[in-house]
Amino acid sequence: MRDSTKQLIEIEPRNEEAAAQARQHIDQLTKPLGSLGRLETLAVELAAMTGKAFPAVTPPGVIVFAADHGVATEGVSAYPQEVTAQMLLNLTRGGAGINVFARQIGALQKFVDVGVAVEVDAPGITKKRIKAASGNILREAAMTREEAESAIQIGMDTAHEIVEEGAKVLIVGEVGIGNTTASSAILSALTGADPDEIVGRGTGLTDEGWQRKKAVVREALALHRPDAHDPIDVLAKVGGMEIGAMAGAILGAASRRVPILLDGFIATVAALLAVRLQPGAADYLIGGHRSQEPGHAFVLKTLGKEPLLDLNLRLGEGSGAALAFPIVEAAARMVSEMATFASAGVSDR
Amino acid sequence: MRDSTKQLIEIEPRNEEAAAQARQHIDQLTKPLGSLGRLETLAVELAAMTGKAFPAVTPPGVIVFAADHGVATEGVSAYPQEVTAQMLLNLTRGGAGINVFARQIGALQKFVDVGVAVEVDAPGITKKRIKAASGNILREAAMTREEAESAIQIGMDTAHEIVEEGAKVLIVGEVGIGNTTASSAILSALTGADPDEIVGRGTGLTDEGWQRKKAVVREALALHRPDAHDPIDVLAKVGGMEIGAMAGAILGAASRRVPILLDGFIATVAALLAVRLQPGAADYLIGGHRSQEPGHAFVLKTLGKEPLLDLNLRLGEGSGAALAFPIVEAAARMVSEMATFASAGVSDR
Repeated sequence: MRDSTKQLIEIEPRNEEAAAQARQHIDQLTKPLGSLGRLETLAVELAAMTGKAFPAVTPPGVIVFAADHGVATEGVSAYPQEVTAQMLLNLTRGGAGINVFARQIGALQKFVDVGVAVEVDAPGITKKRIKAASGNILREAAMTREEAESAIQIGMDTAHEIVEEGAKVLIVGEVGIGNTTASSAILSALTGADPDEIVGRGTGLTDEGWQRKKAVVREALALHRPDAHDPIDVLAKVGGMEIGAMAGAILGAASRRVPILLDGFIATVAALLAVRLQPGAADYLIGGHRSQEPGHAFVLKTLGKEPLLDLNLRLGEGSGAALAFPIVEAAARMVSEMATFASAGVSDR
Repeated sequence: MRDSTKQLIEIEPRNEEAAAQARQHIDQLTKPLGSLGRLETLAVELAAMTGKAFPAVTPPGVIVFAADHGVATEGVSAYPQEVTAQMLLNLTRGGAGINVFARQIGALQKFVDVGVAVEVDAPGITKKRIKAASGNILREAAMTREEAESAIQIGMDTAHEIVEEGAKVLIVGEVGIGNTTASSAILSALTGADPDEIVGRGTGLTDEGWQRKKAVVREALALHRPDAHDPIDVLAKVGGMEIGAMAGAILGAASRRVPILLDGFIATVAALLAVRLQPGAADYLIGGHRSQEPGHAFVLKTLGKEPLLDLNLRLGEGSGAALAFPIVEAAARMVSEMATFASAGVSDR
């Protein structure tokens, strides 16, 4: 199945020519050499990704995938499962954090139900439901292999849709009570990381809940023994539908040379899943922020990505990536809009 | 004179009531408690500064002050002195880095000549020239005490003008070849910091130039022996006109309860000058970014300010603060636009 999934996704390599052209142009802009630091390396990355020395990055597109987790009944979250559906409704009404920040950056927005426990109806919900909540990973697999493949396919399709609607950079986010537990299990399964090192407090667990969550991750991994070399197996056994959809969306954007700006822990674990399915996707990822969740720094390091922001966020929904987007926009504007020493008649050293 | 300057500037204390109201409202928004991290503390600070739990922060205002430094002839900069005037023209034509980022955030912009060596004419330059370049601090004072006071007054007046035009947050920036040397001397004089610890490479000095710059700062301080308890004396003896104007602008904004978003090393040294003149100004400062210049981390720490960004910038002009502004805007939007648990019908834990 990994082979057939790989066949679905063709990802082109970085365009080093466009990157070199961007680098050369940046060095002629009216500023001391290298003085815009990270903005300059980011602009070069954008050129390599998009294949354009002067890339367009607006509007960005935000896709939030929502699903429930059977494991939520095991006391691994500070909030009850019903909050997933309530937050999905809140998203469609524009009241969630990601809505506010998406409006600020002029983003296209999509909210996709891939498996909320109790189906909700509201204009603005894209329904691509796989099933009503994943299985409780303490007792059964989160989903079948076919369901895991569906989640990835749904994500790819949705990314292609938002790209066709005009999105130039993709942000993926999630709502799903219990999904830091699933993400921690995926991360541990894919990398061998000790759950003690990567499991965090999620939305705000007590010490007792936190210990319980670590135990749940360890027990689920011992029960299912997912195959680290088979990302679909890992996703099916201990993952979540919205996490699979995010991984698919990342692959879908990368296949269209659309840069992906990473949000927090869950989105970045989805990115690692995507990269394990198709290593070429790594070239299209930009680190958005470093969250409070301890596993986030670890997975960013595993992916070799340095985040743009470090603001102690832990909301998810794509919110941290949306907050980082103005830096991406600034990098693109720097290249397109700043004068050169020659055009401005400024003496170079 | 310090006393008469203090009389000019009345700065009101933080409004703790508005801050408490903002804190209480933020805790009711549809997100896990504290999950927007630094954005939440920033929103509370904005309330304390503006006196409004739901503050408006747009449009921001950017003022760039330009002046030359006699010490630029001593090999302390990678660029020749003529670049100051050329960059001032570039600013009026919209080609400098700060222009690009100011447009992105919809900022009001002012470019003020407070003492460029060779006067230049162009629409868009506000002329408030004190004299043509400050004195070479290796041989003479940068300016007289009266000139230093003028610089501060010009800054205050310009800040009041941009606030009257509608600016809700102030960003101050500078162009002035040689001004990291003057800023280092001011910082060392005000805090007793060893020049070896705080003098950096500015726009890109070689090792030799860097050693020379440290020696220049040490020699200037030994020659003039500025009085650490008299900020005007420090500014006059080893400072620069644009640095004095930035300090004045910060005091002017603070006196109108307008938050100041700090740029890099030079702007932050100007903020320290402002705080030494009137300690109440500290309550209106927000750390924008941490630059590559080694003295910047030191002066931010002296002011007790943690920056929002850390992107290895060292351009000046107000550019790093402009890049940080979207985070300030997001904090204000979070408070005003996010739904509460009650309004959205989302279950709290």
